[in-house]
Amino acid sequence: MDGEAGALEARIRASFDKQPMMRTLGAELASVVPGEVKIRAPITDAVRQHTGVAHAALSFALGDTAAGYSALTTMAEGAEVVTAEIKINLIAAASGDYLIATGRVVKPGRRLVVVTAVVEAVTGSVRREVAILQGTMVPV
Amino acid sequence: MDGEAGALEARIRASFDKQPMMRTLGAELASVVPGEVKIRAPITDAVRQHTGVAHAALSFALGDTAAGYSALTTMAEGAEVVTAEIKINLIAAASGDYLIATGRVVKPGRRLVVVTAVVEAVTGSVRREVAILQGTMVPV
Amino acid sequence: MDGEAGALEARIRASFDKQPMMRTLGAELASVVPGEVKIRAPITDAVRQHTGVAHAALSFALGDTAAGYSALTTMAEGAEVVTAEIKINLIAAASGDYLIATGRVVKPGRRLVVVTAVVEAVTGSVRREVAILQGTMVPV
Amino acid sequence: MDGEAGALEARIRASFDKQPMMRTLGAELASVVPGEVKIRAPITDAVRQHTGVAHAALSFALGDTAAGYSALTTMAEGAEVVTAEIKINLIAAASGDYLIATGRVVKPGRRLVVVTAVVEAVTGSVRREVAILQGTMVPV
Repeated sequence: MDGEAGALEARIRASFDKQPMMRTLGAELASVVPGEVKIRAPITDAVRQHTGVAHAALSFALGDTAAGYSALTTMAEGAEVVTAEIKINLIAAASGDYLIATGRVVKPGRRLVVVTAVVEAVTGSVRREVAILQGTMVPV
Repeated sequence: MDGEAGALEARIRASFDKQPMMRTLGAELASVVPGEVKIRAPITDAVRQHTGVAHAALSFALGDTAAGYSALTTMAEGAEVVTAEIKINLIAAASGDYLIATGRVVKPGRRLVVVTAVVEAVTGSVRREVAILQGTMVPV
Repeated sequence: MDGEAGALEARIRASFDKQPMMRTLGAELASVVPGEVKIRAPITDAVRQHTGVAHAALSFALGDTAAGYSALTTMAEGAEVVTAEIKINLIAAASGDYLIATGRVVKPGRRLVVVTAVVEAVTGSVRREVAILQGTMVPV
Repeated sequence: MDGEAGALEARIRASFDKQPMMRTLGAELASVVPGEVKIRAPITDAVRQHTGVAHAALSFALGDTAAGYSALTTMAEGAEVVTAEIKINLIAAASGDYLIATGRVVKPGRRLVVVTAVVEAVTGSVRREVAILQGTMVPV
């Protein structure tokens, strides 16, 4: 990893590590590159809904956070970002070993950053899309 | 509470109590009437994001679940409902003692139930709207 | 109508009258008060889809425009507003004599204005909700 | 074009040609393949908003219709589809010669079809994304 990429990842990781909600959900930062961030979390008993699959809020939490950090990779050091709005379509039951969300910047901007995310459920070597998100992040 | 209202609340509560994610987030079912369900959760350290306010995923979890159960109140006993999609606009920082989400049915239906939710943050006797949601629940 | 209210309506109307798309769809500004704007349009052959009901784009056009102008009522003279994003749930077939959209400000703001809209279809003296919208307007 | 592909396009075109709203907006069906449909329309004076760019409702109309027809390509002959909900993020001013929307199926289904669309503005040989959509179509 070159110095610039390492610095970017370190900056995102420093922010991520200060998010108690991510710890509560067992989430880990899986990768950081400019414009794209991946976050994963195991599907444990703590995050299920009554039907046994992961609650939609887990897909949302991972997708929203990955999308927010993808936006942050496009901003200057010291910047912060908040979610203005985001929409999630749940497309399959979120069952498996873990969920991994990939957030991406569609359109960077000084005032608004448009983002998407895809959430996949992984069981062994099988990956299935379980949710897609589309939203707006705002530098603050 | 008359028998019918009591039976409705008991039915929703039985489902709610089987949701580990709701326990993980410290959420409680606050009220159930036909077409409207309220869920609340304290803003504890476990659900904060790095800026100290509650993570958007808490507002989402409460709003989505309240909206889903509001849909379930319009359906026959034994029915289940899943979120097809839902969108959240975050309108203020989610700080305070607790959050309370009110989910409401806009349009019941055999195939799709259109719902909204409002999430408020409560600090002492002050209540502020922090998020609004609009989505679609599907009977399964 | 007092002078201030008249000035507000005149300001919104001046902008509305310069929108060729509104003329193309036969839309009229129906009412303007601070934080709430109504726009209506007849359901003519020109705006139908192949099934005979009004195309979702008519409900969208009226709802989005009413919501945008409701945001503009909260801003200083000379300001303009653009839609950052908006979501529509179609809840019933848009048939009848005309559609009327009511746009409302949920949360004004210097950087973002959160809005909703309801679109109703009117047939004689009967009114039915056909769509609801939730979105974000941005002052420019 | 082989017979099956030709039959699919003919089926979508027959439906498209019965949509008066598409004619009102000057829209044309540009391409049809399984799971993906493109629709384009010139940016004429009739579809502008007061700032001179195309009204958001044009991007919506093209994106929603392209997405709906992409869903229809996954369904049996004789089927129809309606939009349950769709969300649009406007990411750049819609100026240029024409807009072209590409609708795609993310997840086919018997009860719900999840779709996305991208709308691009074309000026000479330059193409820019102006909007993205994410929604749900329902077979009826």
